[in-house]
Amino acid sequence: MFQQITILGPGLLGASIAMAIKQAHPSTRIHTWSRRVETRKKSQTADWCDQVFSTAQTAVQHSDLVILCTPVATIVPLLEDILDHLQAQACVTDVGSTKAEICQAAHHLFSGSAAHFIGSHPMAGSAQSGMEHAQASLLKEAYCLITPMADTPPEQVAHLVDFWRMLHMQAQLLSPSEHDRIVAHISHLPHFLASSLAWQLAQKPSEWTQYCGGGLRDSTRIASGDPTLWQQIFHQNKREVLNAIDGLEQSLASLKQALHCDNSSELYKRLEHAKNYRDQL
Amino acid sequence: MFQQITILGPGLLGASIAMAIKQAHPSTRIHTWSRRVETRKKSQTADWCDQVFSTAQTAVQHSDLVILCTPVATIVPLLEDILDHLQAQACVTDVGSTKAEICQAAHHLFSGSAAHFIGSHPMAGSAQSGMEHAQASLLKEAYCLITPMADTPPEQVAHLVDFWRMLHMQAQLLSPSEHDRIVAHISHLPHFLASSLAWQLAQKPSEWTQYCGGGLRDSTRIASGDPTLWQQIFHQNKREVLNAIDGLEQSLASLKQALHCDNSSELYKRLEHAKNYRDQL
Repeated sequence: MFQQITILGPGLLGASIAMAIKQAHPSTRIHTWSRRVETRKKSQTADWCDQVFSTAQTAVQHSDLVILCTPVATIVPLLEDILDHLQAQACVTDVGSTKAEICQAAHHLFSGSAAHFIGSHPMAGSAQSGMEHAQASLLKEAYCLITPMADTPPEQVAHLVDFWRMLHMQAQLLSPSEHDRIVAHISHLPHFLASSLAWQLAQKPSEWTQYCGGGLRDSTRIASGDPTLWQQIFHQNKREVLNAIDGLEQSLASLKQALHCDNSSELYKRLEHAKNYRDQL
Repeated sequence: MFQQITILGPGLLGASIAMAIKQAHPSTRIHTWSRRVETRKKSQTADWCDQVFSTAQTAVQHSDLVILCTPVATIVPLLEDILDHLQAQACVTDVGSTKAEICQAAHHLFSGSAAHFIGSHPMAGSAQSGMEHAQASLLKEAYCLITPMADTPPEQVAHLVDFWRMLHMQAQLLSPSEHDRIVAHISHLPHFLASSLAWQLAQKPSEWTQYCGGGLRDSTRIASGDPTLWQQIFHQNKREVLNAIDGLEQSLASLKQALHCDNSSELYKRLEHAKNYRDQL
């Protein structure tokens, strides 16, 4: 097990990871760094945190695992900042929702380093964000997708898999590109769609909102996500997200065509197929 | 207050209405008819039901209010069946999710009758369906949209408004076409979209479903609705639903264009606008 772990940017996910580490292995030391002074102050009083640093470079020193929990667009710049300050043999990972761009850049960056990078994506979240809503149970039984490159040594991968499993996550290996294709469909596309729907309805008379029920609230809930974070995710996974949108446009067009042509059996068949899919989720 | 009320097709909504009537005005007699024998048997033992009939024609006799709670495509045929059996001055309403086609047909049917029809749409539901999940509280504080024709006598409208208010619903008057335009956007479009998304994902490798999280489950929840009922709703409100889909396709295309062209500020602006709309729901 890792003896000292640095968490860069402890928010909802990073602080939950820290709590889960302390539960599973209390003797592990946790070091953190946050960009904002207020967050650093909050971390100082948290019982899952042993030491808070004012720079990422000092926070990663002597740690055998470093976990980047900052927004996806900041991960590669932050890797550049810390690279020369990592302990030899240190394992570096992240928790970003996109993987191909990050893993490719990290592969290039770490090519001359004794430390190594393997991407992770713990698929755990909540409607709330921020360190104050963190809890170890957030991770329990959730999937953690781990995305090594083709030439990542298996023993390094195994070490990281063991770490996430120790936190009661279901670790699963995928290539970075396969990861991005899957999450483009099951996570990024639904968000893109919910935002498109909410944007369209926002153009309608405001008095319509009083009639909105639980169905609309459910189907647009994810549109409440942080626009800055989601804009970064869409940009980083642009190619796969655009592919997924193309597919949705085709699915929508064929369902619309069935309605337009009064093709009841086709409309019924697709609605039933969609229901069967949803019911097994 | 109405002294005898007939509920045709008591399912989740019809049985909830019957329970709410008995709570608000215990002396009102409730008569029911259901197409299926098993449902008629269940109604016989329900404490919100005074008498069960084996035909709709006999069930409506001597009632001063008749509420049709059957699927939207069956409402007009059922109105034709009961028309000659209604008491003079009887008020007839329904609970269908579409109004223009039903109200127009009913207007024509009732033109030579001493009874009258006014459409209603109690916007109350639950993820479950069927009489066994009914409860009076389902209606509480929910909107009931009431859709008289331009020439419906105001005192008849007022009487129906008072009835829904007695059940603690928020009664609101709209024209049938205005009703259909609003619900096409806030209810039928989200369902159409959720079904399109679920249909698209159903074509993908089945192992992807294990990674699906709460976001996808929420945004596709309504796709679990009964395909028969929804196919009827889409067909009855075809013109407005197609209009709403056109609008969504434009909203989706412009958000997609912003991503395609790396127009971060436009993408951010739309995501933020969508979030603000969702947050106030």
